Amino acid sequence: MVSAKMYELGTKKSTIRTIFEFGRKRAAEVGEENIFDFSLGNPNVPTPDFVRDAAIEILQTYEPAQVHGYTVAPGNPKVREALAKSINERFNTNFAGKNIFVTSGAAAAITICFKALAEPEDEFITFAPYFPEYKVFVESVGAELKVVKPRPEDWQIDFDDFKKLLSPKTKAVIINSPNNPSGAVYSRATIKTLADILKEKSETFGHPIFIIADEPYRELAYGVEVAWVPNFYRDTLVCYSYSKSFSLPGERIGYIIVPDEVSDFEKIFGAIAGAARVLTHVNAPSLWQLVAAKCAGKKIDITPYERNGKILYDGLIAAGFECVKPQGAFYLFPKALEADDYAFCERAKKYDLLLVPGADFGAPGYFRAAYCIKTETIERSLPLFKKLATEY
Amino acid sequence: MVSAKMYELGTKKSTIRTIFEFGRKRAAEVGEENIFDFSLGNPNVPTPDFVRDAAIEILQTYEPAQVHGYTVAPGNPKVREALAKSINERFNTNFAGKNIFVTSGAAAAITICFKALAEPEDEFITFAPYFPEYKVFVESVGAELKVVKPRPEDWQIDFDDFKKLLSPKTKAVIINSPNNPSGAVYSRATIKTLADILKEKSETFGHPIFIIADEPYRELAYGVEVAWVPNFYRDTLVCYSYSKSFSLPGERIGYIIVPDEVSDFEKIFGAIAGAARVLTHVNAPSLWQLVAAKCAGKKIDITPYERNGKILYDGLIAAGFECVKPQGAFYLFPKALEADDYAFCERAKKYDLLLVPGADFGAPGYFRAAYCIKTETIERSLPLFKKLATEY
Repeated sequence: MVSAKMYELGTKKSTIRTIFEFGRKRAAEVGEENIFDFSLGNPNVPTPDFVRDAAIEILQTYEPAQVHGYTVAPGNPKVREALAKSINERFNTNFAGKNIFVTSGAAAAITICFKALAEPEDEFITFAPYFPEYKVFVESVGAELKVVKPRPEDWQIDFDDFKKLLSPKTKAVIINSPNNPSGAVYSRATIKTLADILKEKSETFGHPIFIIADEPYRELAYGVEVAWVPNFYRDTLVCYSYSKSFSLPGERIGYIIVPDEVSDFEKIFGAIAGAARVLTHVNAPSLWQLVAAKCAGKKIDITPYERNGKILYDGLIAAGFECVKPQGAFYLFPKALEADDYAFCERAKKYDLLLVPGADFGAPGYFRAAYCIKTETIERSLPLFKKLATEY
Repeated sequence: MVSAKMYELGTKKSTIRTIFEFGRKRAAEVGEENIFDFSLGNPNVPTPDFVRDAAIEILQTYEPAQVHGYTVAPGNPKVREALAKSINERFNTNFAGKNIFVTSGAAAAITICFKALAEPEDEFITFAPYFPEYKVFVESVGAELKVVKPRPEDWQIDFDDFKKLLSPKTKAVIINSPNNPSGAVYSRATIKTLADILKEKSETFGHPIFIIADEPYRELAYGVEVAWVPNFYRDTLVCYSYSKSFSLPGERIGYIIVPDEVSDFEKIFGAIAGAARVLTHVNAPSLWQLVAAKCAGKKIDITPYERNGKILYDGLIAAGFECVKPQGAFYLFPKALEADDYAFCERAKKYDLLLVPGADFGAPGYFRAAYCIKTETIERSLPLFKKLATEY
């Protein structure tokens, strides 16, 4: 009577969701302050005042039809110009409005790219640990997701394994730096090697292999550079969202950059418009388009996340955990204290420490701790991590 | 290199778009005031002040995280309760929040329903004249759209033709009342007959046939009742949008109602959640969810549309056109003055009257005139319609 696949996708609870709901139940029993919920990647730094002020100013001073009317599918032309200008100022690039397709957030941006590019039998490649919705979205456009095995020493790329997965069926490679869940930022060397391999393989296979750079955490980097991928590789589509940088995840606003240099700009941009249409993203929410244009490039304060990451990292190391130092996003991805990360996270629950098993991200034996929570909660959790460690 | 289908969908210009762009070009040549653009269904009544005031109040007084955070996929629970309450007050129904799935507008709402319901080989039926994106959206979920032929005397339903198209493959029937492009509102008798036939056929075929009631124009009815379809037929999903009633088409906010009475509530609601997920509608824009909850059920002023419709209708009748009287939405759908509606609309262009051929909506020989434009423009267009008529 209904699509069995849609029913499954709509009802099968994710591990994260199950953990989160357990947390809500426990909070009702023992009090909010006794729950240490590291499960959700929900930004906890409030939306900057300049964002709210811009929205109010637009509502108060613009003609309603200018704010709330349909925009053309790729976005309000003036918004696209403003976003391109802001990107150019930061990355010394030369984009124009025509290189920008404004989207309803990054989930839409990446899936529009997948759907625009996917032909029958196509494969997409990503790198463990990875955001699990990639698999859902890639499969929803009829393609297959191949996953390169993790490189736990620094969460950069295992190029030997990567090379094994590349094939004439490879349409694109999805990278996510700063990374959810590892917190790693790909080094220039990593991006350069990736680009070199893809250039060679594109030539060998006789068709371009694209990089889809999923960059919602671009601004959340702590003392390390986030390489600008199109400078390394021409066939790059950059997907961005204001969900994390401006703490606007509910408003669904982001964009895709299609550089002039991609193999066939007109074909790709056209297919992106078609994909947005059938995914029924008629246009990205029009008020938030205007707000993004007004606020693009404004400085945000990432010190709360940086401080949280440092406190949690230092605490875990002191408790005996192994963990790569936080470089970006708002996640740590330490090694679990037993091989079975599900068992480990179950044990952590006894202390009301809510952690997500690494297997959910394609990296068993690790766990994700999202530190976009109150600093005080992190500080009070440290003795519990210590107790947990002494069980092993 | 890209999906040929997506490229085609993203680049093939619609007739409406082509006409609109012609109008922009002409406006630059001869002046905005000399162009009579009846091509677009873009609401021209400004967004009500109470909508703007609600948005500003929310931005000024709520915690940012409450406004801009992710909501769960079906929408903010309090918003869903408020929308259910408002619907109950108007239609004497008994919905709760759990019956509402908040969406990014009506295009998303209907396509989520199509995707949730569609199984291989399924067919959907709609009635000419119809909104052409139905075909794109139904085909995008792998199903086929069958179109019942028009009934030009009153734009109600040709039930003989409808019965011929019903088959065991029929999954759902899409109705749109008040109708784009005909402006007709289905009478109680029409809805009752439709429901009776579907009840009988559902029994015969051994599975429910759903009604998907696409109702973005629900409030735009002029002295006629818009029947509440779930009162006539249990397997009805109602899709709504605030695009037209609140003049918010760019903000993408609407909802699906899934009544308790549908054949398998839990299955359908679950599949809807899955469909929203793969179409990457993570949640409907969160600020606009809160605004909709605050403003739902508030009275809007439809007299500008009603007045425009009457002036245009009277003028066209006086000029010798045949046309069903406007009942709802903001469209007239008169008979073209020659059999070839494309040729007729081309001829109208000579007078800078921009009209859309009925064939685009599956009803050749007619044309659509959207009267959601300035009253003065309509008044000044009437002598031109008269001149055009004298050519025949």
